[in-house]
Amino acid sequence: MSVYLDNAATTALDADVLNAMLPFYHEVYGNPSSQHEMGRKAKSAIEEARKTIAGLINANQGEIVFTSCGTESNNTILKCAVRDLGVKHIISTPIEHHCVLHTLEYLSETHRIKITILPVDNEGRVDMEQLERQLSLINEKTLVSIIHANNEVGTMSDMDAIANVCDKYDVLYHADTVQSFAHYKFDVKKTPVHFLSASAHKFHGPKGVGFFYMKGAAKVHSFIHGGGQERGYRAGTENVAGIVGMAYAAKMAYEHLENDREHILGLKNYLREEVKKALPDVELNGVLDDNQSLFTVLSLSLPTHPSGSLLLFKLDMQGIYVSGSSACSSGASVGSHVLASMGKGADRIPLRCSFSKYNTKEDVDILVKALKNLYEKTV
Amino acid sequence: MSVYLDNAATTALDADVLNAMLPFYHEVYGNPSSQHEMGRKAKSAIEEARKTIAGLINANQGEIVFTSCGTESNNTILKCAVRDLGVKHIISTPIEHHCVLHTLEYLSETHRIKITILPVDNEGRVDMEQLERQLSLINEKTLVSIIHANNEVGTMSDMDAIANVCDKYDVLYHADTVQSFAHYKFDVKKTPVHFLSASAHKFHGPKGVGFFYMKGAAKVHSFIHGGGQERGYRAGTENVAGIVGMAYAAKMAYEHLENDREHILGLKNYLREEVKKALPDVELNGVLDDNQSLFTVLSLSLPTHPSGSLLLFKLDMQGIYVSGSSACSSGASVGSHVLASMGKGADRIPLRCSFSKYNTKEDVDILVKALKNLYEKTV
Repeated sequence: MSVYLDNAATTALDADVLNAMLPFYHEVYGNPSSQHEMGRKAKSAIEEARKTIAGLINANQGEIVFTSCGTESNNTILKCAVRDLGVKHIISTPIEHHCVLHTLEYLSETHRIKITILPVDNEGRVDMEQLERQLSLINEKTLVSIIHANNEVGTMSDMDAIANVCDKYDVLYHADTVQSFAHYKFDVKKTPVHFLSASAHKFHGPKGVGFFYMKGAAKVHSFIHGGGQERGYRAGTENVAGIVGMAYAAKMAYEHLENDREHILGLKNYLREEVKKALPDVELNGVLDDNQSLFTVLSLSLPTHPSGSLLLFKLDMQGIYVSGSSACSSGASVGSHVLASMGKGADRIPLRCSFSKYNTKEDVDILVKALKNLYEKTV
Repeated sequence: MSVYLDNAATTALDADVLNAMLPFYHEVYGNPSSQHEMGRKAKSAIEEARKTIAGLINANQGEIVFTSCGTESNNTILKCAVRDLGVKHIISTPIEHHCVLHTLEYLSETHRIKITILPVDNEGRVDMEQLERQLSLINEKTLVSIIHANNEVGTMSDMDAIANVCDKYDVLYHADTVQSFAHYKFDVKKTPVHFLSASAHKFHGPKGVGFFYMKGAAKVHSFIHGGGQERGYRAGTENVAGIVGMAYAAKMAYEHLENDREHILGLKNYLREEVKKALPDVELNGVLDDNQSLFTVLSLSLPTHPSGSLLLFKLDMQGIYVSGSSACSSGASVGSHVLASMGKGADRIPLRCSFSKYNTKEDVDILVKALKNLYEKTV
């Protein structure tokens, strides 16, 4: 039996989601751009999915663009805001996902875009005063890109506060919601945000499909050029089954939001208590306040151990799947850029536990017991 | 019962391909970037798929990059050849897919890249003398991008001849093989081509996944910035099930290549004969020589008809699914850019029939009978 506690990296596809996808693998295989019935059926499934997703965040249907992943969504928003909307300056944070940070590096090097990185405190919170100070000084078209919920430590930014200050200074605002969409509610009519991004596999949908929201007034054009798919906003034959699966997964997630949150937050808090009992010297990364932290993520700093980062491998050998920092950077030999930004030293062992509706108290017990054993052996 | 003759737009997913994909929806749902067993299993499936595809075209594994579609593949190759390889001049044809033509327009307008469009004859053949003349005049880094098999009329370019002349003048060569990969054999060690592109849904694989080949000596870097997926050549969490499905579909296609070709070419020739008997005034678009034309595509120019282009809708009403030109441009109100480049007037009605292994002689009979009826009614 395995214990999967790496749901911030990716989640298991829901069986019902797969069932919703299968007709688009079996019968309705038409190209949505084909004019005949087989194509029209595929097209109408896509538009139904768009309507579903738009409805979930109170957007207009024309404001949702389907992509192949969250990374493509973020690339499109940032690069095309520069190309199409005249953005010359992007204000961001050091704890963004690599798909934002590396895109900013690229835009700085290749397009001479001014990049301002705001400091974060040792719990990963953005300095809102600095943000406002920066905005009060701007003299060119500016985009603020701040991750809504950090994928490594779970710290959440205050979207309403950021949106309001961006609105006050009339700048564009992009919130990377890859970790929070389908876990938190959004109302784009109430929160003046221009761009959101999401990825289906973070909420029990399939890998290989994502979307972004763009406010009607801030439309970026195609990052990938070609056919007229997505009303010209994203070329390439649509991943019909994937899009249908994503919309279904999102709908299910929002229907069960309260119950799932209660269950998952219960597990997170249970782990927090149990791991402190088992390893009194453990430290928690990120914000403790549940209102400012993803209920799905608990980031621990474990005490030093003779195995070092091989500790995770020892858990893996027991079928316990957790993460050091984020999956996307786990191949890299450097430490976490997020923990470093928060002033966390590299002397301790970072351990990210991330939960889904499928996890149980037993999963937590197994993890805590395994950790306890690993540390007791060293005494 | 329906008759699906639009396989150049997209093909039905093979049931065996879906079966190969399902374990990656059910059990092996890990993020390939995760270091634990669940991630490593997903990663190893991707690398196995890469090995399969590389083997099919005699490439090295490191020369295959997975993407979300053929359009993304072509965008990456063209835009990143400009960005990373110093390409200043691209020589192409007017009968490329829109994902090439619109990318060239973009590169011309935004990056001031010189674009030379070679003429094609009235059967869609590239003027090889013109190509060589152009190449003899170049004085800057040049890429030749010529579609291997045109998606609308099926005319094929001579890859070996183009590769050799590109080699002679030391320029880069990209062949858009979206319509021909898995239908024709390629050996990238024998043919000096630098880039190939492909899309799984054109050969009974899933939508939402493609790949490109890039020769070791001509490596373009990431078009989509982010994590270190695809060894840094394409960021974004991998569509694991899609990649596995694509490799499986390609393997199956090459295993049954000869039989499938014989069957499909038989249907194409049968349609050619039958439609001429039924409508003596029909014209054929593209090359008649089977060695210079896709065995999967037969493009007809139908005589004028009171219904005009609604004729296709009348076929559709009878469950016969064919295409006017290409699916990707079928939403557009303008005529086919391919047929126009070949000097074909807009007075006739273009009808593209494209076959797969699933089609039968009965399908052809039904189509021909329906066409005959539609024209007889007008007499």
